[in-house]
Amino acid sequence: MRNIKLLIEYEGTGYQGWQVQKSGPTVQSTMEAAIRELTGEACSLTGAGRTDAGVHALGQVAAFRTRSIHDAPTIKRALNALLPPDIRVMAAADEDESFHPRFGAKEKSYFYLIANTAHTSPFVRRFVWHVPQPLDMAAMTEAAKLLVGKRDFSAFMAAGSGVKDTVRELREVSVEELDGLDFLGAPIGGRYVRVRVRGDGFLRHMVRNIAGTLVDAARGKIKPEDLDDILASGNRSNAGPTAPACGLFLESVNYVL
Amino acid sequence: MRNIKLLIEYEGTGYQGWQVQKSGPTVQSTMEAAIRELTGEACSLTGAGRTDAGVHALGQVAAFRTRSIHDAPTIKRALNALLPPDIRVMAAADEDESFHPRFGAKEKSYFYLIANTAHTSPFVRRFVWHVPQPLDMAAMTEAAKLLVGKRDFSAFMAAGSGVKDTVRELREVSVEELDGLDFLGAPIGGRYVRVRVRGDGFLRHMVRNIAGTLVDAARGKIKPEDLDDILASGNRSNAGPTAPACGLFLESVNYVL
Repeated sequence: MRNIKLLIEYEGTGYQGWQVQKSGPTVQSTMEAAIRELTGEACSLTGAGRTDAGVHALGQVAAFRTRSIHDAPTIKRALNALLPPDIRVMAAADEDESFHPRFGAKEKSYFYLIANTAHTSPFVRRFVWHVPQPLDMAAMTEAAKLLVGKRDFSAFMAAGSGVKDTVRELREVSVEELDGLDFLGAPIGGRYVRVRVRGDGFLRHMVRNIAGTLVDAARGKIKPEDLDDILASGNRSNAGPTAPACGLFLESVNYVL
Repeated sequence: MRNIKLLIEYEGTGYQGWQVQKSGPTVQSTMEAAIRELTGEACSLTGAGRTDAGVHALGQVAAFRTRSIHDAPTIKRALNALLPPDIRVMAAADEDESFHPRFGAKEKSYFYLIANTAHTSPFVRRFVWHVPQPLDMAAMTEAAKLLVGKRDFSAFMAAGSGVKDTVRELREVSVEELDGLDFLGAPIGGRYVRVRVRGDGFLRHMVRNIAGTLVDAARGKIKPEDLDDILASGNRSNAGPTAPACGLFLESVNYVL
């Protein structure tokens, strides 16, 4: 059996997230249907990250097994012809039998976009969390720094997750203030904040809970120096709110460090 | 009566263009409904440019008369609360009684975005014309230069337009090759082409017909040196196809030169 690795971009707006759900179409189910149509085989597509409903991806990685004789460039082309335009295969390649998109991932990078503007431009509305209140960038940056390192992130995990090992290592939690955004070469005015989080793995809702907590720090609802206590408490209710899905992008999945 | 000028951004995807139509919602009708709701008065909103169905605007200008006592910042805020998120008022201001958004416009600027890529990224699909064939940029640039100046553009006007005076002055027709696009700070790969057209006025479909003709020149279907003959013929069927609406943006309307 061949093991085909795919690099995928998608706008999550129209999907119930990555993983197959009964509630509506998902990226995984849509892609599996396209692969079945191409190969004529049953298909199980494994993704590197199970993005939530509404979350976008610029660099999702997934893999499936097949006996298809189509070469990788043909698979890429054919899948793009079969898929809806909000999901694109950017690359396809044969991988070793042992390659696993999730277990093999050494690091993932996400970014979260906040529009700190009076009104949200029509062109960014699907891709930002609109937070009109004044934000204290120094407090936000200080809080972000305290999240870097190998820590128990259970206070940042969605309630009800069954995961036992809640220790993750975050190698980057950065806060970048942007004076306007570039939208396809045209300037979009206003103040934006980009939070980038890079680490060896993530718990359910972890990046969105980090974004919500950093915004709470920036709005003065949480003191940056409380972050250590919040982490130590392991109590989800001590951290900030879960930021909306639409501001989150899975940026890349790295298999070598 | 006060004369209120609005600066407007919209994503055209969901609208039958600017001007009121029976076939579906338009930007004008949607905005007039919001203004009526705010002021309690009948409202007629005049736009600087009648963008086609699916065309976007980063800098549309419009104006309406009112006896409302709300100040301009309040009008802006209230309209944004009443409008759907794909239309935003970026600025509102009181203008002289004599100000007319269309008759007063000295110059308009549009740009047209072409994705010369194998596949279209989900994040740009609503905003580009996807042209996968190889493009001869030198031919496209040469053809663009021949369109600059004060000319009779009837060969670039939609068939059936009733306009008598078809002479317009184009001050810029530029072709810019872009190696990737910036999408909210993230790189979108591939080759893109931006055509920018600036002039004292435009006939119906003129920018889209220019974009289609320049792409025909870039695909070798029209020779750049034929542009003079095409213009002289005044015959719409000699120019290239009408490029799709989704790649077109009304960039700005200028009232002083």
